[in-house]
Amino acid sequence: MTGEAGMSDYVVAVDVGGTSMKGGIVTRSGELAVTGRRPTGAEGGPDNVVAVIRSFVGELAARGASLLGRGPAAAGIAVPGLVDDATATALYAANLGWRDVPATALVPLDVPVLLGHDVRTGGLAESVLGAGRELSDFLFLPIGTGIAGAMIIKGGPYGGTSGWAGEIGHIPVFPEGEPCACGQTGCLETYASASAVARRYSARAASPATAEEVARLTAAGDPLAVKVWDDAVEALSLALATYTLLLDPSAIVLGGGLAEAGALLSDPLAARLGERLTFRSAPPLRRAALGVSAGMFGAALLGWRAAGAPEAGASWTLDVPKTPAVP
Amino acid sequence: MTGEAGMSDYVVAVDVGGTSMKGGIVTRSGELAVTGRRPTGAEGGPDNVVAVIRSFVGELAARGASLLGRGPAAAGIAVPGLVDDATATALYAANLGWRDVPATALVPLDVPVLLGHDVRTGGLAESVLGAGRELSDFLFLPIGTGIAGAMIIKGGPYGGTSGWAGEIGHIPVFPEGEPCACGQTGCLETYASASAVARRYSARAASPATAEEVARLTAAGDPLAVKVWDDAVEALSLALATYTLLLDPSAIVLGGGLAEAGALLSDPLAARLGERLTFRSAPPLRRAALGVSAGMFGAALLGWRAAGAPEAGASWTLDVPKTPAVP
Repeated sequence: MTGEAGMSDYVVAVDVGGTSMKGGIVTRSGELAVTGRRPTGAEGGPDNVVAVIRSFVGELAARGASLLGRGPAAAGIAVPGLVDDATATALYAANLGWRDVPATALVPLDVPVLLGHDVRTGGLAESVLGAGRELSDFLFLPIGTGIAGAMIIKGGPYGGTSGWAGEIGHIPVFPEGEPCACGQTGCLETYASASAVARRYSARAASPATAEEVARLTAAGDPLAVKVWDDAVEALSLALATYTLLLDPSAIVLGGGLAEAGALLSDPLAARLGERLTFRSAPPLRRAALGVSAGMFGAALLGWRAAGAPEAGASWTLDVPKTPAVP
Repeated sequence: MTGEAGMSDYVVAVDVGGTSMKGGIVTRSGELAVTGRRPTGAEGGPDNVVAVIRSFVGELAARGASLLGRGPAAAGIAVPGLVDDATATALYAANLGWRDVPATALVPLDVPVLLGHDVRTGGLAESVLGAGRELSDFLFLPIGTGIAGAMIIKGGPYGGTSGWAGEIGHIPVFPEGEPCACGQTGCLETYASASAVARRYSARAASPATAEEVARLTAAGDPLAVKVWDDAVEALSLALATYTLLLDPSAIVLGGGLAEAGALLSDPLAARLGERLTFRSAPPLRRAALGVSAGMFGAALLGWRAAGAPEAGASWTLDVPKTPAVP
């Protein structure tokens, strides 16, 4: 392969969220040559979401063709909800309303395509390119509006029997605790997601606050914020003790909005996790490396796998900011 | 390979427990040609345990040679505690007192040997020969004096990063609950092991009782027994809900002494597990098929892997009872 041919090889990568999606074209050497963002159009129903994704993939491919002189080698798409890896089908997503959407329906081009679960695809990216680069077995835990984990087992993301693995946000950490939107009580997510921290503080204080503000108030010693933050840390320490006892991971990689709090979260969490484990040591906590781009880079890795180049990624050095956006 | 040669091919298999060990010789076609049991001699210290195992393996091999006309093809040994699969070393076992015992130290013969963790080796046997025969991803949960699980993932037992995976007995199901011998509070094992059921009933009633007696009293409606049994079921339902949400297994295979209670355990447990899972279905509960022989048959499978015949086992039809015992 010549350097020139290598540069013009690329895949289309799209990370679909509940309300917006991020996409890009990523070359074989890991250059993010184009990037963009679109609303999912979920308010228009599932058929509209599919049409919007198709059109975004088409735009990115056209932009790639004009920039690099040929069509994409493949496409990789990360989606929320339940995904069947074996048949490359998006089975279900509550926030998008769709059922049984085949990967090929999301791509208006005749190229190979791979579909991945959003959190597991982010975990794949952290595993190949990010904080888990040299680890074969770890947990990637993005803590945002909700909480779900990507379990990296024997070198790759693990989806379980039917694609439902990793639902750590709904394990019952306090069985007699507060009700969760899922119908259960005492779920991790009800205490420790960024939304839960904001909601639980706002309900106790006079005025509403974001999770970021609760973190600042906690650092400043505000007693209400300290209590809410402490509950989140306690819930996370229980969930991570459980994960460690079951899975024996070599590290836990924290991501998402709440991890932005840095040591305010990780210091007390590491201490309490260590206290909870009596006959074994605690795995180290790490910060995720790829931030909100994890899903899109994971989708690019899926794209390269679809293109028959699974080794792509091993040598990438990511350089996220300076990329032209699709207008 | 002729039938004659096949019949005389065999491995030595030993399953080492805390106080006693079971051993046998198992042919390539799965016939358990000899079986026996010995005390581990743990009271004599770790060096004594090693000597006792060596001598038992030697006896079994000699018995095999006189019966089948040649020495064993290999040996497989299951041990408690922490095992490093990669180096075939028994790293640590609290009840035997040993540290860093290489597999070769347990065998007085120049044959290949594989070492496995006792519960995971039992899980291997249930996976290849027993209740999980057609399943690639499930939990084998023997509930006895203690509770540990064998997590079958992608077709084989999973040990985690350092051999500590599967410690489901010590996940904190009731974080504010009763103290556990491990130093933590509210561990599953403290409520739901056979010893815990016996201990918790005996502490509440006037007289001591075994777990089997508590099961009988529960079936008869004794209020103290019903409460203790209900706590065990509740603790198990929380632990299995957590396992299901994290691992998405296709089944949960219950074994050990407490599973002998049959529907008295599995009916309320299945009902409560189903109630705890709100957005997904519960995996079916199954009874383990191999009983107390799971570890020894798993050790035989390890032996055949050591002998370079990993396919052995797939066609075995087990016929456990009618076998001559080593005197």
